[in-house]
Amino acid sequence: MGSGREGPETFSPFDVVGHLIDGEETDWMPRARIILAGGPDPRFEPYDRFRHRARNSDRSLSSLLDEFTRLRAANLDLLRSWRLKATELDLPGEHPGLGRVTLRQLLASWVVHDLGHVAQVARVMAKQYREAVGPWVQFLPVLTDHEVPRS
Amino acid sequence: MGSGREGPETFSPFDVVGHLIDGEETDWMPRARIILAGGPDPRFEPYDRFRHRARNSDRSLSSLLDEFTRLRAANLDLLRSWRLKATELDLPGEHPGLGRVTLRQLLASWVVHDLGHVAQVARVMAKQYREAVGPWVQFLPVLTDHEVPRS
Repeated sequence: MGSGREGPETFSPFDVVGHLIDGEETDWMPRARIILAGGPDPRFEPYDRFRHRARNSDRSLSSLLDEFTRLRAANLDLLRSWRLKATELDLPGEHPGLGRVTLRQLLASWVVHDLGHVAQVARVMAKQYREAVGPWVQFLPVLTDHEVPRS
Repeated sequence: MGSGREGPETFSPFDVVGHLIDGEETDWMPRARIILAGGPDPRFEPYDRFRHRARNSDRSLSSLLDEFTRLRAANLDLLRSWRLKATELDLPGEHPGLGRVTLRQLLASWVVHDLGHVAQVARVMAKQYREAVGPWVQFLPVLTDHEVPRS
């Protein structure tokens, strides 16, 4: 169940949890710190979408879920402790592919990124039952969603 | 957040919780009982996809979530208490639109139906942030998923 995928370059539920861990360690909060440091070149490090593959090859799903839970809780505690004001949320960073972005946009993207992967995990889990539902397939559009997979 | 939708005939997160409650009360377990009764005409009642709209018009999302939690837990307790065997899982029912289906297919469809609506809720919640993410929209495919909505 945790290893199903929609296509060769897409993520299984196991991959998604690893990818979310990578986000906690290398993406959202490190980039927020770069913005808040307010230096003359607030350029983000490029983000490695496949860091998790080598990192977690001998891990279990439940151990990754525990690790993600700890990392996320610590990051949210830290974020809250900053008590960000509107002027800070408008501070800029430089994304390697997207150019100028604000801290406000980064935090909104963190939320949306989670939700996109929640939708993906639900789709991928559902598709494990494609044959098991028999004729119900026609009333269950999630089973035929993204036949050409998206990441 | 709980009232956003992808299109006029599609469900908000609030609608989804009401629809899942309808499923607990009028769909999955009542149909399983019809199958297990083993009568000569194991025909299901048609299911009303919009029962929740009138039923829940004065309810809060948190109260609906509490109600769903109670109903689902009770149904799962009951389902487990039946200790279904393979021969029972192969018993037939008659779906008003799909024709002959088995109890095994009904139970698999119950799971997939949940997951489809989890994916929908995540998509609909994500889309509330479509403007807030700024240039990140191009890296967040959930924001542009189903521009022509599915139910």
